[in-house]
Amino acid sequence: MFKNQEVLSGSVSKVDFDEQEPQLRVDLINAQFDLNEADFSVVIIIAGDDRLGANQLGDRFNEWMDARYIDTNVFVKRSQEEEERPRFWRYWRVLPANGRMGVFGGAWPLQAVSDSITGKINKKQFQHRLDQINTFEKELADNGTLILKFWCHLPDEELKKQLKKSKKHPDRKWWREEQDWEVFDKFRKQPKAVEQMLEQTNTPEAPWFVVDGTNARFRDLTVAKIIRDRIQERIANPPKPDVSERVEEEYEDYIGQVDLSLAYEKDDYKKQLTRYQRRFHTLMREAHDKGISTVLAFEGWDAGGKGGNIRRLTSALPARTYKVVPIAAPTEEERVRHYLWRFWRHMPRAGNLVIFDRTWYGRVTVERIEGFAKPHEWQRAYDEINDFEEQLAESGMVVQKFWLHISQEEQLARFQAREKTSYKKYKITEEDYRNRAKWDDYMVAVNELIAKTDTPNAPWHIVPANNKYYARIYVLKTVCDALAKAIRKAGR
Amino acid sequence: MFKNQEVLSGSVSKVDFDEQEPQLRVDLINAQFDLNEADFSVVIIIAGDDRLGANQLGDRFNEWMDARYIDTNVFVKRSQEEEERPRFWRYWRVLPANGRMGVFGGAWPLQAVSDSITGKINKKQFQHRLDQINTFEKELADNGTLILKFWCHLPDEELKKQLKKSKKHPDRKWWREEQDWEVFDKFRKQPKAVEQMLEQTNTPEAPWFVVDGTNARFRDLTVAKIIRDRIQERIANPPKPDVSERVEEEYEDYIGQVDLSLAYEKDDYKKQLTRYQRRFHTLMREAHDKGISTVLAFEGWDAGGKGGNIRRLTSALPARTYKVVPIAAPTEEERVRHYLWRFWRHMPRAGNLVIFDRTWYGRVTVERIEGFAKPHEWQRAYDEINDFEEQLAESGMVVQKFWLHISQEEQLARFQAREKTSYKKYKITEEDYRNRAKWDDYMVAVNELIAKTDTPNAPWHIVPANNKYYARIYVLKTVCDALAKAIRKAGR
Repeated sequence: MFKNQEVLSGSVSKVDFDEQEPQLRVDLINAQFDLNEADFSVVIIIAGDDRLGANQLGDRFNEWMDARYIDTNVFVKRSQEEEERPRFWRYWRVLPANGRMGVFGGAWPLQAVSDSITGKINKKQFQHRLDQINTFEKELADNGTLILKFWCHLPDEELKKQLKKSKKHPDRKWWREEQDWEVFDKFRKQPKAVEQMLEQTNTPEAPWFVVDGTNARFRDLTVAKIIRDRIQERIANPPKPDVSERVEEEYEDYIGQVDLSLAYEKDDYKKQLTRYQRRFHTLMREAHDKGISTVLAFEGWDAGGKGGNIRRLTSALPARTYKVVPIAAPTEEERVRHYLWRFWRHMPRAGNLVIFDRTWYGRVTVERIEGFAKPHEWQRAYDEINDFEEQLAESGMVVQKFWLHISQEEQLARFQAREKTSYKKYKITEEDYRNRAKWDDYMVAVNELIAKTDTPNAPWHIVPANNKYYARIYVLKTVCDALAKAIRKAGR
Repeated sequence: MFKNQEVLSGSVSKVDFDEQEPQLRVDLINAQFDLNEADFSVVIIIAGDDRLGANQLGDRFNEWMDARYIDTNVFVKRSQEEEERPRFWRYWRVLPANGRMGVFGGAWPLQAVSDSITGKINKKQFQHRLDQINTFEKELADNGTLILKFWCHLPDEELKKQLKKSKKHPDRKWWREEQDWEVFDKFRKQPKAVEQMLEQTNTPEAPWFVVDGTNARFRDLTVAKIIRDRIQERIANPPKPDVSERVEEEYEDYIGQVDLSLAYEKDDYKKQLTRYQRRFHTLMREAHDKGISTVLAFEGWDAGGKGGNIRRLTSALPARTYKVVPIAAPTEEERVRHYLWRFWRHMPRAGNLVIFDRTWYGRVTVERIEGFAKPHEWQRAYDEINDFEEQLAESGMVVQKFWLHISQEEQLARFQAREKTSYKKYKITEEDYRNRAKWDDYMVAVNELIAKTDTPNAPWHIVPANNKYYARIYVLKTVCDALAKAIRKAGR
């Protein structure tokens, strides 16, 4: 086993252990306190063929460090709520905040290996999982997370010895048990899956440390020292952002090409509205029965008509099946996490609809233009967003994105109309005029994001929205078509 | 129907509606903005025999108000994760933060009525549910939440008319549908359940407004005006805390009676530890298989040994089955909610264990003594806590509470020892000495909380903890006994 993977093994005597432990604990506590003030989080994976060793190691963390700053999550069978969402949702929902340490037991590496060993996924799917793991971990690392992965290993002979001993000593029998035999068998019969996983997901951003647990003292000291050293190192040398010169590219003027003269008359609109709302209602019911979830993303100019469009969709649905998530300033719990966390947490249950009123594209529009995100951050975001949407689509969701496009003149007219309509006044602030002054910057940003994130699984629709009637029917019809397609596909 | 309940009914013409709507929207938006700065939340329940009307009303809220400050949740069938927790957990998990409005569709009133109508619960259980609703709502109200409940009603004749009309006009058919016939039948056959619920849960803290939806314009205007008026009124006249003189009572000196000389020798301890950890492991496995969850609450003097006790429990268990929740300063999301919210969110899934290292009893100890909670707040908390624990126990959980008692001398000795042990130093701060100086205040507070919250379903155990060995075995044994009892009970 582990031909191409270094295995950390050795032995520490009780005397040596007792000598080293106190200082190590001081260091760990200090590292934790420093981390607490830092702007990054730590994700520690504990997995392994040594089930008991992994447990003991987790307990050790809580003993040696201040448990108040550690979130431990052990992942076993997915719950129904988890089954109904994309695979990584269960991990996203418990990612630690900056300054904290998340200990993940088993988690995504063990899940992939176990699915492969039990035949749930074939070789190609397994490879795909490993690729996804690398993407996920790189993304966390890029956004500041320090990731350390430990594989607790016990050599065959040692495990056999311990199991036998455990059977002989009934008062210790509950330490090593039948389950360990099973795990033992499982891993030993197909060591290749473990090897392949360790090899391919051992990256600079998220390195694996394979630790031999024959001597538990050695294992615990070794792992604890790695954690201490890596945290200290990271605090001493914060990663330098990539400031390499960016090659400015020209993108097609997608939104400039939209024909804003498209319009419907009121009577025609009313007829079509009834027709498409009915169709939408029927399709959503089918999608609901088939467990197909839908995510709709609305972006566009201020006063572009997002609210009105969304209401034309929701008014055709029973309230229990949808949720509208308006994206405003992030809460504290959101601010101290990966910028996509606040979107992941709203993913719909099977068969339901979530509509985002403004979205994760804030990263590459307002955050880019206002400088809230650094250049390397928003430049990286296109790939991150594509990966995010890819995961949603892969889990069977319908993902459709709308940019509501209006002309500058139309926007001004709407601003002025709002200022005259008493109950709409609140919607117009100085900020709206400030944003308006940056129209050209937004044009550049939007054309780039469309060029980079318009994918078959999560397409962009640039909606001609000068005429509200036209826009609403356009959106309804587009959503209906996408739903119909997904339902047909699911039916096959 | 509704013999003893006023039904708001009437008709508003389109002309009148158009005249009133703009000002009402301004008022609502302003009320929302004022609320946003206020220190309370608003809970709005929409339920009713008129399913469609309730939906339309919910949509209206999102149209008329700023949807960014409204959290809408419609409650249908409980998910598996919800099934595994106490009944109110699903509501607690989405309670709005201060400054926000939570719209609850159906929720606890409809659930109770529906369970009664479908025969899931008998008359006595239904009555119990209604009592629980009153307790829950009173508690929210006491802690500042403004609760408004709307029952959307459609008279029989009107509903029949609409259903027939809907069948005749296929383009509108999807508005009123089979489901409405079912709901109609269900409610009409047993109007008494609805009546009883409305009557008995119509309280000053959480009033019901029954609104006839024959004329939707009337319904929407009426409800919106009530919401506007009540929010304005509440902001203008914040509730005055009850400052009535408290009758100081003497409580038995429970903790003073503990025999702190109780001790085990090391050898004896080791034997017993192995024995009880094994027993605990076996019992927890049985409890896990039977779906029995456990909540253990640890309180006690600083340096009383909570951490060591907790580790003796967890080291006997697989990491996937338990979670230790250390209670430190609340996060922002926790601070702006009911003080019990942060504990509700950690309730274990079926068969699992959650250990709280410090607990909700902070309300009646540190918060009382340091003045973080006002007198009427902590005085009310005993009942609130009893109700909370009662709900846990009622859902089948094992709830056990431990106060680790040491002498003042022993505490000082431990403080000094910690200051000498390098890796324990961080555990001793000036605050510990400040708390120590308030020993007598704590004695009073603890004796009172034991007198008031030691219940058969969630008993207190005052643990003689001067001798760590004795305390650990005492706790392990107590937990084992409670588990064994619960398992026997579940087996019957």
